[in-house]
Amino acid sequence: MKKGCPYGTHRVISPKGVLPQPADVIDNTMEIYDNEVLIDVQTLNVDSASFTQIERQANGDIEEIKKIMLGIVAKAGKHKNPVTGSGGMLIGTVKEIGPAYVGDLKVGDKIATLVSLSLTPLVIEEILEVRPDIDQVDIKGQAILFQSGIYAVLPKDLPETLALSVLDVAGAPAQTAKLVQSGDTVVVIGGGGKSGLLCLYEAKKRAGVTGKVICIGGSEKSTDRARKLNLADEYFAADATDAIGIYNKIMELTDGKLADVVINCVNIENTEMASILTTKDGGTVYFFSMATSFTKAALGAEGVGKDVNMIVGNGYCKGHAAISLQVLRECEPLKNLFAEMYA
Amino acid sequence: MKKGCPYGTHRVISPKGVLPQPADVIDNTMEIYDNEVLIDVQTLNVDSASFTQIERQANGDIEEIKKIMLGIVAKAGKHKNPVTGSGGMLIGTVKEIGPAYVGDLKVGDKIATLVSLSLTPLVIEEILEVRPDIDQVDIKGQAILFQSGIYAVLPKDLPETLALSVLDVAGAPAQTAKLVQSGDTVVVIGGGGKSGLLCLYEAKKRAGVTGKVICIGGSEKSTDRARKLNLADEYFAADATDAIGIYNKIMELTDGKLADVVINCVNIENTEMASILTTKDGGTVYFFSMATSFTKAALGAEGVGKDVNMIVGNGYCKGHAAISLQVLRECEPLKNLFAEMYA
Ligand SMILES: NC(=O)c1ccc[n+]([C@@H]2O[C@H](COP(=O)([O-])OP(=O)(O)OC[C@H]3O[C@@H](n4cnc5c(N)ncnc54)[C@H](OP(=O)(O)O)[C@@H]3O)[C@@H](O)[C@H]2O)c1
Ligand SMILES: NC(=O)c1ccc[n+]([C@@H]2O[C@H](COP(=O)([O-])OP(=O)(O)OC[C@H]3O[C@@H](n4cnc5c(N)ncnc54)[C@H](OP(=O)(O)O)[C@@H]3O)[C@@H](O)[C@H]2O)c1
Repeated sequence: MKKGCPYGTHRVISPKGVLPQPADVIDNTMEIYDNEVLIDVQTLNVDSASFTQIERQANGDIEEIKKIMLGIVAKAGKHKNPVTGSGGMLIGTVKEIGPAYVGDLKVGDKIATLVSLSLTPLVIEEILEVRPDIDQVDIKGQAILFQSGIYAVLPKDLPETLALSVLDVAGAPAQTAKLVQSGDTVVVIGGGGKSGLLCLYEAKKRAGVTGKVICIGGSEKSTDRARKLNLADEYFAADATDAIGIYNKIMELTDGKLADVVINCVNIENTEMASILTTKDGGTVYFFSMATSFTKAALGAEGVGKDVNMIVGNGYCKGHAAISLQVLRECEPLKNLFAEMYA
Repeated sequence: MKKGCPYGTHRVISPKGVLPQPADVIDNTMEIYDNEVLIDVQTLNVDSASFTQIERQANGDIEEIKKIMLGIVAKAGKHKNPVTGSGGMLIGTVKEIGPAYVGDLKVGDKIATLVSLSLTPLVIEEILEVRPDIDQVDIKGQAILFQSGIYAVLPKDLPETLALSVLDVAGAPAQTAKLVQSGDTVVVIGGGGKSGLLCLYEAKKRAGVTGKVICIGGSEKSTDRARKLNLADEYFAADATDAIGIYNKIMELTDGKLADVVINCVNIENTEMASILTTKDGGTVYFFSMATSFTKAALGAEGVGKDVNMIVGNGYCKGHAAISLQVLRECEPLKNLFAEMYA
């Protein structure tokens, strides 16, 4: 049996020398290396940006969507959308484990991979069903998990699709748990969205009664969603691209003290300054939003002379799957809302 | 006297509602608001990317460079290069201080502004001299510093141009001082460059004899520059876009333990993965390089299942000017090198 690199570089075909994610083509032979895991795939949960693009290209035609997806995998050996560059995740059952693989997996375990499909060797034999409303596609096929690939064994007490929707943004509540201290003032921008709601819950739990959690929603609708579940201490709807407006409002709500931790969970550009201005000197901004611009954040903080700690939202942090699923177990109303919205 | 906003929003002409940096046009009337500082400008230190662009557009012709610069300021009220979006900094003398300004400045102080020219109200009456080799331009003119605008009073014991070159990257050694603990293993990528050399010095000072500082240079030349000054414990030249190559080398040099802190000081793209892979789980990556991509860092870490703390290199951190100038005072050989290279 061939020896594999923990990061899967042994499967990279072109260009040579890069990691599987930036690679254009990877080897999707379903014969495992000694440290790989073979998965029988049941469902692909395509990244929202990627699925929207494919759907548009196909003019909404299901057969055409299937053709495009099969074409991507045939060409690249993985489901990395060439337009958006993004992947998604998958659900499947462990079929074979290499003898040199280190970990707790057993053959037969039902898992969700938490590394992107954009780096996962995949073979699609047949597409069984496309569910465009939730970006999910049932297939007959197989995939490979590298030694370094993260995954979560699916919990038995939660519906699979519900678990999947939460695992997609698991890094956010897990990082919130790490960052927020008792007594902190926390602002969650985009607090009414999927990751935002989970962050609000975790922030309130950590900040406690002596802390203060403020939810900024993008609309009255999403703000009300958080308000109904009583996830924060203060709520308002505002446009997070209006840095000064948001700053004034947060100054008012915090008696001019601003926030210890600001968590950015929006899905639009140009919200770096609102995040920076509402953070107190020495405080922390956690950018979970993928629409964050590195230079806008770095130069923006310098431009207003703010000594704030700015963190890049790593999609992974130890125990992130367990922490995020636990939120749903602890908070029945949030679980019901997620079941309604995403499952 | 009119009351000003600490962030200078009172000077924004268009578009309305944004901060002075993203603004297209700001008001450069040299009559101060109550919390502003008026500066008699001596020298503009144009951002390297910006100056290179202007020089190219002018085909190297000095009179043409002057015309382009005057045109930018006439149009925008500030020296924000419309192509690169970047500014630079300036040296000047404090001429007038608004009664509501809070700070230690006195009329007559010689200062360098540490906020970007891309947000600083500026009037150029005349361009006196252009020094293309070091991107500096002497002018007759005035500028405004906002209440939130950071600056450094120029030290009397160091040549002005030397101080300027160091202040440009002051955030890097200052953050290094905060991040590195005694006994840490530290990797500086791009360690032979301007910010890299300062970071190496600061890292070695903090990590101490029980720590280990590793310098990765982009070429033998820059690596030798650091080696000659004895700024690190290990040195090698390598291409930081080769993530796996760098990873293997750092594994070897650290007995498989990897680094507690990795500081990225390069000026090129696609070095996120080398930075992430060489950091141990739970360690910190400090991205000072402006060529860092937010999404490449966030998805990259997730893709390889690395729980690392990734920090956006804020150009500002408290005391950054003092910390960076102190490095030159403490390290005579580094001071001489900087004087040779940048002054
Ligand atoms: N770092 C990582 O590893 C990682 C992993 C997964 C996802 N993400 C990113 O995380 C972000 C959020 O994901 P999600 O699933 O939570 O998205 P989501 O459910 O769509 O939530 C986004 C929220 O942003 C709000 N918003 C939109 N425009 C706004 C504005 N101008 N001002 C204030 N709020 C505004 C929306 O409010 P309304 O509904 O009221 O418009 C919405 O509630 C995305 O950018 C995604 O790419 C990052
Ligand atoms: N965050 C902030 O606020 C802030 C403020 C100022 C500057 N910056 C950024 O900081 C970065 C560094 O600035 P600087 O003034 O220190 O620049 P610099 O003096 O030009 O140093 C850059 C170094 O990167 C090295 N390098 C280039 N390609 C490389 C490769 N493929 N592999 C390894 N090393 C490589 C170069 O080595 P060789 O010389 O051997 O090629 C050089 O020594 C820039 O990106 C700049 O934009 C950030």
